[in-house]
Amino acid sequence: MDETVQVAVHLDEGDAARMRMALNNIANLCAHYAQAGQAVAVELVANGPGLALLRADLSPLPEKVAELAADGVRFSACANTLRGITRDEGAAPALLPAAQIVPSGVVRLIELQRAGWAYLRP
Amino acid sequence: MDETVQVAVHLDEGDAARMRMALNNIANLCAHYAQAGQAVAVELVANGPGLALLRADLSPLPEKVAELAADGVRFSACANTLRGITRDEGAAPALLPAAQIVPSGVVRLIELQRAGWAYLRP
Amino acid sequence: MDETVQVAVHLDEGDAARMRMALNNIANLCAHYAQAGQAVAVELVANGPGLALLRADLSPLPEKVAELAADGVRFSACANTLRGITRDEGAAPALLPAAQIVPSGVVRLIELQRAGWAYLRP
Repeated sequence: MDETVQVAVHLDEGDAARMRMALNNIANLCAHYAQAGQAVAVELVANGPGLALLRADLSPLPEKVAELAADGVRFSACANTLRGITRDEGAAPALLPAAQIVPSGVVRLIELQRAGWAYLRP
Repeated sequence: MDETVQVAVHLDEGDAARMRMALNNIANLCAHYAQAGQAVAVELVANGPGLALLRADLSPLPEKVAELAADGVRFSACANTLRGITRDEGAAPALLPAAQIVPSGVVRLIELQRAGWAYLRP
Repeated sequence: MDETVQVAVHLDEGDAARMRMALNNIANLCAHYAQAGQAVAVELVANGPGLALLRADLSPLPEKVAELAADGVRFSACANTLRGITRDEGAAPALLPAAQIVPSGVVRLIELQRAGWAYLRP
């Protein structure tokens, strides 16, 4: 398998232990493929309570996110979830610099799978 | 991508917050693809504690299920789980009108993936 | 579909109820395909807190694991998780006889999906 390994990671729970596990999973798989000389693309898609990972005010692991982003991991925040938060809190939350916004987290996960990406749900 | 987008949603947990998230995920993805003029097929497969979503006596969200079913979403209840409930409670539980029974929830999820459906596990 | 049905089951949570559900899922799908005369390959990949299922000292379901292993189900323990446990506890944990060690649980799940296996996350 010479082509790039593509992996979508779904995070929709808000507890710090699960967020830490998701980021550890990503760090481990990146290390594995780097050692194997195999190109890899990884995107974490955060929606629902999982979006807190990418909030500047709430993320329990901002340095780890920045570090993985520097290694090329993409972090996608669901715009539907952001709209709900904005409605509830009266203002849009600030996101970590690494976060990109996607229109719908679940649609993103569907489209990545349709494009051949593996799916992990830690 | 002209072909129908196909999405299997796996629900096997019994708390109302997760059920609500699963149904919100489905509503969001249906809205997205409708707006894009893209045909979509969605099936929620409920097994284990997740089957409570489809029980007439226990579902916390019967109107939301009915509404999504009216939009074409399929709701599948695992017959293995139903047998277990029947054994434990002494009678088969009544299901919501939208529910269809499948012989095995996990087999259904496997077969849908083998037929090219994306898999989401909220 | 004459070819072997291939299913990867991801277990990364440590509560006994979820472990029991994962093993019940596997027993049910094996029974279904056996009755259908359809060959099936099933591999449970345990990482993070889910690895406790495969520990000789902690597994709440050692007989069930042995029984499914005798039916051909593979049980894979993540070496990254094992290293973390060894560091924390000062010694490598003994595993159930059925367990095989894989270098990385998440990489294993990715590679199985890339090889056409369905993914279930109970």
